[in-house]
Amino acid sequence: MLDKARELDAADPLANFRDRFDVPEGVIYLDGNSLGCLPKATPGRLEQVVREEWGRDLIRSWNTAGWIDLPTKVGAKIAPLIGAKGHEVIVTDSVSVNLFKLISAALALRPGRKVVLSEPGNFPTDLYMIEGLERQGLAERRLAERGSLRDALDEDVALLLLTHAHYKTGELFDMAALTKAAHDAGALVLWDLSHSGGAMPVDLNACEADFAVGCGYKYLNGGPGAPAYAFVAERHIAETRQPLTGWMGHAAPFAFSDDYEAAPGVERLLCGTPGILGLAALEVGVDLAAEIGVDRLYEKSKALSEFFHACLTARGVSLELVSPADPDVRGSQLSFRHSEAYAICQALIARGVIGDFRDPDILRFGFAPSYLRFEDMAEAARHVAEVLESGEWQREEFRERAAVT
Amino acid sequence: MLDKARELDAADPLANFRDRFDVPEGVIYLDGNSLGCLPKATPGRLEQVVREEWGRDLIRSWNTAGWIDLPTKVGAKIAPLIGAKGHEVIVTDSVSVNLFKLISAALALRPGRKVVLSEPGNFPTDLYMIEGLERQGLAERRLAERGSLRDALDEDVALLLLTHAHYKTGELFDMAALTKAAHDAGALVLWDLSHSGGAMPVDLNACEADFAVGCGYKYLNGGPGAPAYAFVAERHIAETRQPLTGWMGHAAPFAFSDDYEAAPGVERLLCGTPGILGLAALEVGVDLAAEIGVDRLYEKSKALSEFFHACLTARGVSLELVSPADPDVRGSQLSFRHSEAYAICQALIARGVIGDFRDPDILRFGFAPSYLRFEDMAEAARHVAEVLESGEWQREEFRERAAVT
Repeated sequence: MLDKARELDAADPLANFRDRFDVPEGVIYLDGNSLGCLPKATPGRLEQVVREEWGRDLIRSWNTAGWIDLPTKVGAKIAPLIGAKGHEVIVTDSVSVNLFKLISAALALRPGRKVVLSEPGNFPTDLYMIEGLERQGLAERRLAERGSLRDALDEDVALLLLTHAHYKTGELFDMAALTKAAHDAGALVLWDLSHSGGAMPVDLNACEADFAVGCGYKYLNGGPGAPAYAFVAERHIAETRQPLTGWMGHAAPFAFSDDYEAAPGVERLLCGTPGILGLAALEVGVDLAAEIGVDRLYEKSKALSEFFHACLTARGVSLELVSPADPDVRGSQLSFRHSEAYAICQALIARGVIGDFRDPDILRFGFAPSYLRFEDMAEAARHVAEVLESGEWQREEFRERAAVT
Repeated sequence: MLDKARELDAADPLANFRDRFDVPEGVIYLDGNSLGCLPKATPGRLEQVVREEWGRDLIRSWNTAGWIDLPTKVGAKIAPLIGAKGHEVIVTDSVSVNLFKLISAALALRPGRKVVLSEPGNFPTDLYMIEGLERQGLAERRLAERGSLRDALDEDVALLLLTHAHYKTGELFDMAALTKAAHDAGALVLWDLSHSGGAMPVDLNACEADFAVGCGYKYLNGGPGAPAYAFVAERHIAETRQPLTGWMGHAAPFAFSDDYEAAPGVERLLCGTPGILGLAALEVGVDLAAEIGVDRLYEKSKALSEFFHACLTARGVSLELVSPADPDVRGSQLSFRHSEAYAICQALIARGVIGDFRDPDILRFGFAPSYLRFEDMAEAARHVAEVLESGEWQREEFRERAAVT
């Protein structure tokens, strides 16, 4: 399959973008959906922010370097990647914190309804943030399996909160259909784009989505713990009230008034002082994703994952696929179930093939098409086959659980 | 006064620490209480985090570089600066977000009481975060002037929320006395240390404080929008419930369970994935503050501000002082009232003397003793005198308000 891989690489219109990333020698990185690779432009940009903007210009940089506008500026750059208008998106805080804001905002927009509906097995933080509001007495968490979500959408549901691409399996929800179903039931919808935004075309406005959040450190390559983004549909902005009413979300933060007045725009989602280092690094990653374009990224990602799967099959590897077999209904990843997934994952990492493990038995491979080659797919499949055939994953060293798995 | 200043500098035991900061040529920086200067070690540390930990080691750095432990590790380093035990402090999110968590936690610990008491003119975000909870129906905001706070502490008060050193005037609250008064009334206390932590000795545990928050980008020199810290007294940790129950605050984040269970320790204040760039930069600043020591910092800060004031007086400058005249009851700053404070501040900045303006009429000078010299005080006083005498602040260019003032 290596010859075929090289042919595909030679014909790949995105092949040159690999050079824009610092992909470590000897590593096949199939974990860009956990932490994206470092864009080569990022260290220089950070050096400038640190030495010139912070070190030399100090406090003046809030104005002169435009720090104060970074949350809206980077948000506006993310907007076209997710089918939003520039003034509907802002970069701030973490996905978790933004979930809290937007779940709260949705509940306030649907007085008399307290249920927030989601699915069991959604990414934990999404479920936990509903619980946080439940413990405050403000929400009621309801979970229904994928097939039963529509039935669970009754007149008590204020908000449907779903992750577009499932973090474990990559399975996609039909965003348009579920948004419509929720609206038909009088509920609002909040989409978590953490595992789809920046990896595939998302069209929030075409689907008439109400709210969305998404992650900066996966497909947007913003760096470890990069700030997150949040989307509010234009029609809701003026009515969106969220409880984390910090000074940066005020209509006039530097008037230092005792009383809160929400900023007229999506800036009302801001809370404390934005972290400039994280924002600056994220901007570099977003610029790159925008330059490549999400349509091309998704096309290549599907081709990569299909080719990887074909290489596994050609090598006689049979692992239980838990992702949808149809690449059009999954995100940029393939996940397999194996009772020894943790040890296999560690054995692969020892060979330089970095995928990841998701408790209890999932082996997950992510395909970040900006820096992966088809050759990497053929090689990764060879390593998977060798690890399984050799049984080297049975070594003691591969069974010791690290703090972060 | 310049000769006297040079004498004082020659005798200053902290004089050498100036070389550990990148203080720009031609600038007298009296705004370290808004954004601290860049420690010289920070760019190198960030370069390592970016190129090696992120770029080369990628996702593995959560374990191998100890990223997952940074919030508790940096928190434990801040603890001795504020009179806390290592396991009582964590670095996470912003001051604003942490206020929301801890106000909520206090309300949950005092069922039947809804009032959160503060003073008018407190830093706006502190007041706004109470309002956020008020709008959720969970809190009731009560404001009382400094002299009336004790009288306002009745059986409805769940929490007294005060900023230790006032952001405008620098006036200090008597932390021990007010904490005791609140406890006597059955209320808890949350101290905002943003304008005192890292600049002067603070002894939370000796005062029996319940909760505290503080800022990373002022006296701790953590960089623009650095993450903030939060303190929970050991006796409260197990009972502290806060609503921003994100996955990083879970007892077992990587078990990916559907149901939230708070981490046993102060990690329960964590919410989303921590921003590693901000944490790494903050750690450098905290290490420096710890190396110098807050007692020495405060001694020098008082000497600097007294000398600055003496220099102003010697030059015949008479500005209305709004800070306490006694350096023992103020933070590391001096503030003056002038109806043209904004323009005067701009004229001083044009001369390289960076102080700051606080709406509507406050001219604020901060004294960050790790990198300021007595000579800077004499020179700054000369510039203030010249700007006032010359009337150069009346130029049109100094009246145009920037976005961030």
